[in-house]
Amino acid sequence: MHVRIIQAHPDPGSFNGALSRAATQALSRDGHTVSLQDLYASGFDPVEKGAHYTNRQDKVAFVPLAEQRHAWQSGSVPADVLTEIAELERADLLVLQFPLWWHGPPAMLKGWFDRVFLSGGLYTSRVRYDAGYFRGRRALLSVTTGAPESAFGPGARGGDFATMLWPLHYSLHYLGFTVLPPFAACGVQGHGYSYEAEDTQKTRLRSVLAAWGAHVASAETLPALPFPGWQDWDAAGQPLRTEHAARG
Amino acid sequence: MHVRIIQAHPDPGSFNGALSRAATQALSRDGHTVSLQDLYASGFDPVEKGAHYTNRQDKVAFVPLAEQRHAWQSGSVPADVLTEIAELERADLLVLQFPLWWHGPPAMLKGWFDRVFLSGGLYTSRVRYDAGYFRGRRALLSVTTGAPESAFGPGARGGDFATMLWPLHYSLHYLGFTVLPPFAACGVQGHGYSYEAEDTQKTRLRSVLAAWGAHVASAETLPALPFPGWQDWDAAGQPLRTEHAARG
Repeated sequence: MHVRIIQAHPDPGSFNGALSRAATQALSRDGHTVSLQDLYASGFDPVEKGAHYTNRQDKVAFVPLAEQRHAWQSGSVPADVLTEIAELERADLLVLQFPLWWHGPPAMLKGWFDRVFLSGGLYTSRVRYDAGYFRGRRALLSVTTGAPESAFGPGARGGDFATMLWPLHYSLHYLGFTVLPPFAACGVQGHGYSYEAEDTQKTRLRSVLAAWGAHVASAETLPALPFPGWQDWDAAGQPLRTEHAARG
Repeated sequence: MHVRIIQAHPDPGSFNGALSRAATQALSRDGHTVSLQDLYASGFDPVEKGAHYTNRQDKVAFVPLAEQRHAWQSGSVPADVLTEIAELERADLLVLQFPLWWHGPPAMLKGWFDRVFLSGGLYTSRVRYDAGYFRGRRALLSVTTGAPESAFGPGARGGDFATMLWPLHYSLHYLGFTVLPPFAACGVQGHGYSYEAEDTQKTRLRSVLAAWGAHVASAETLPALPFPGWQDWDAAGQPLRTEHAARG
């Protein structure tokens, strides 16, 4: 496999950085290749706006999806976005590495979705979901949380990962990716603020790094998360009343 | 009521802008006051990073939550964040106006959460959920979608609003807000790309603006969305097996 890791943490020395390094090490050991994009270090601009488009179809009103389509058709996609797309096209597996902030990805990663996955280019009304652009490729979320694992689950205080990660998972499914079960490193506390003595945390986190390395290295055989596809919907997009669709 | 509207769309002339103006008009007519923050127009930086903190506790490692707590305690909160907090403290109702991009808020709005709601200041391990900082205040999401309303719902192609909006709703609940039922303006298509003839869309969207005005003007009497609170969890944060907790 060739693996693309998108990392979204403001500090490369954070545990998120350590997780990316552990993934690279485990994958390399198995003969896979890895390309890492640290969105913060590269100064990626996550804000979708008119200024990114040098060849505007409409120079007054800015309609994001219309300008994305126009940029794709006219060969004027922003250079940083072109690079991201080229790297995605090389990858068999996409890994998104980020801390869970406010029950979702940091703005840096959310904006990577907003800017990179161009309307008219990487999806159309027909090229999406199980007929999506990236079909045949896999995607995997790796998140860190400050709260301990015991705080999460359906109805639990910290929320349920399936619900919290649904927007990102479904967006990856929309783009055609096969979405793999996520990996969560919980109870990751910054310097000088910990639920446990620092040495205990260090020992525990070392085993988390090993577990993540094993998880990502098994990406070729992990079962996909189930999402509804075209066969499950009627023409309007409502679920057909079949056993399969009921899972959605 | 005093109402704070946070708008996150790159074009103030968009339908999102029209929705903010419709809300302002409907609320003013009823004697309420409104303060609008157009995050794009004001150049808000949604990226949480070390450079925002002028009085770092740790000048090498950047631990976001630790620096947020330190900035709050040492009176060195970034100026733009201080302004946002002061405006929130004046408001009885918070409205978030945004287009749904990739099943969530634009990076601009996600980063407003990442930067404004400071750890140690606007929440602590005890001051959150129904004991949260903003308890007694209301919050309301107003979203636009390109897809028509018929594409949404449980198991439907476009996804279910309750799931898509859960991360934002639960974050607002975490902060103590009473979360009101969201408003969705669907089938909002940009210039030159529409499922329907332009005149038909215009007539339909005029009625959507009126419906939104009525919705936001009724915010004082709208029923709250149910979320679990402290009485529903055990000490670890897992749900107690009661009828009430089962709703979460």
